[in-house]
Amino acid sequence: MSATLDAYMTSRGALVDAELKVLLRGRSEEPKAIVAAMSYSIFAGGKRLRPVLVMAAAECCGLNPRKAVKTACALEMIHTYSLIHDDLPAMDDDDLRRGKPTNHKVFGEAMAILAGDGLLTYAFEAAAVNAAKLKLSGRATAELMKVIARGAGVQGMVGGQVADLEAEGWKKKNHGFNPKKALEYIHLHKTAALITASLEAGAILAGAAPDRLRRLRAYGKAIGLAFQIADDVLDVIGDKKKLGKRGSDAQNDKLTYARLYGIADSRAMAAALIAEGRCALKPFGAKARPLHDLANYIITREK
Amino acid sequence: MSATLDAYMTSRGALVDAELKVLLRGRSEEPKAIVAAMSYSIFAGGKRLRPVLVMAAAECCGLNPRKAVKTACALEMIHTYSLIHDDLPAMDDDDLRRGKPTNHKVFGEAMAILAGDGLLTYAFEAAAVNAAKLKLSGRATAELMKVIARGAGVQGMVGGQVADLEAEGWKKKNHGFNPKKALEYIHLHKTAALITASLEAGAILAGAAPDRLRRLRAYGKAIGLAFQIADDVLDVIGDKKKLGKRGSDAQNDKLTYARLYGIADSRAMAAALIAEGRCALKPFGAKARPLHDLANYIITREK
Repeated sequence: MSATLDAYMTSRGALVDAELKVLLRGRSEEPKAIVAAMSYSIFAGGKRLRPVLVMAAAECCGLNPRKAVKTACALEMIHTYSLIHDDLPAMDDDDLRRGKPTNHKVFGEAMAILAGDGLLTYAFEAAAVNAAKLKLSGRATAELMKVIARGAGVQGMVGGQVADLEAEGWKKKNHGFNPKKALEYIHLHKTAALITASLEAGAILAGAAPDRLRRLRAYGKAIGLAFQIADDVLDVIGDKKKLGKRGSDAQNDKLTYARLYGIADSRAMAAALIAEGRCALKPFGAKARPLHDLANYIITREK
Repeated sequence: MSATLDAYMTSRGALVDAELKVLLRGRSEEPKAIVAAMSYSIFAGGKRLRPVLVMAAAECCGLNPRKAVKTACALEMIHTYSLIHDDLPAMDDDDLRRGKPTNHKVFGEAMAILAGDGLLTYAFEAAAVNAAKLKLSGRATAELMKVIARGAGVQGMVGGQVADLEAEGWKKKNHGFNPKKALEYIHLHKTAALITASLEAGAILAGAAPDRLRRLRAYGKAIGLAFQIADDVLDVIGDKKKLGKRGSDAQNDKLTYARLYGIADSRAMAAALIAEGRCALKPFGAKARPLHDLANYIITREK
């Protein structure tokens, strides 16, 4: 990561962490155990990519990024809930995440399911509070909620997760199954949808014009897919220690870009997507610097 | 159920079912399997109590109930997601719900978790679409989202579920554990919170004044708690076949009103709560007829 981007991510990440601490401080009506389980995964060392994207998009469109921080936290809560549920024994059955025991390993399966449910629900509350504080119009507030719900739900991330489940054992699928098409669907929905929603949410908070929203969507879709292709490559060649998890994709015989296209072609596809994504940012000029840096980082990162 | 209430529930239920069919018709981007899993539990014969409350509250406050139907569906989706997750092996481990195999028994655990996640997320989208259609102000739209999220989340239903988990094996708890207090917390949060949120959501859609909202909240809290007390009683004395599930509370050694207070006292408490809830409806006059009928039904129902 470049020194500039590193400093940017650190300062923005600190804002997000401080706000997440406030949001998850636990109120008297809330059982302590669930707050502990939610906090455990929220503060387990995530990169804060999605919340940083919310704030960067808001800034691009002329809003002080601090004013978007609660919505930024909402997107991080949704991302974290998805990881908690993905790691469950009935899903990917992972014991480790970012080098630490997964939520259900520490708090048990029942609490992990509820911690995910709690985070997902809380995300909509945090975004609503943010919209009210900015005195957004009814139309913008509803749009914000719809964008987040669609990115996270059956049309987005949940849909991608389902497609991922369905593709298991893909080598034994019949002739109608197109592994390349299926994999693009999985990555676009499982990863790119929430990244795109993060950018759109930031832009909506800033009252961005439709063309700006459209461009941020295009950027999000491109870097989201590139991010996942890069992840597939890293899963094969990356240092397992740096990734902090077992190289489980190969073991599970999962569909990956590395497997379908090979390492070299996968890298070329990711690079082309990054170029495409950056191109969409043109009208934002210098304000989009962090988004350009993030795009570059996605294909050069080592973990 | 009185003939009047029966006719009312049937006509309102039909509106809800028709709209749920539209909402869950499945779009090209959505994997068919998840739409099937979500639909299975949504159309598994629920009483539609929460959506009917949304529409009845809207009507009480002067809105055509048909204009609240998408939000009514949102509350039913949240209720259904909670049942799917509650039935999971890691939670209550139930094989039957309303006489039918539970979601995970039909679709597998992974899909059941995702179907719940999908319904919860979709609920916020449906409510946002409803708010936009009614051209609610930003403030009212945000308030609608907050009320639903709080009723469903850690401060509400999820919190109640956690307290319920924590109370397991309550007979072996140490001196600090107060079973009566714990049980009231569980019922108020696990059941009353979402019932109250349903009423508030309907009132917000109708642009109700704060005093009206407060009164509907009081009614919701009272009938929600009464509903659960009646459920505890039914679980002991009710015809198991009518309930469509095993009498699992006794087997699991769960905290129930019937066990802590006995059948007679539990019934008296439920009746007192119903009277209290109906009292709060006074200023609504004849418009609150269905809410009065529903309150009476809660303590006289046999399933």
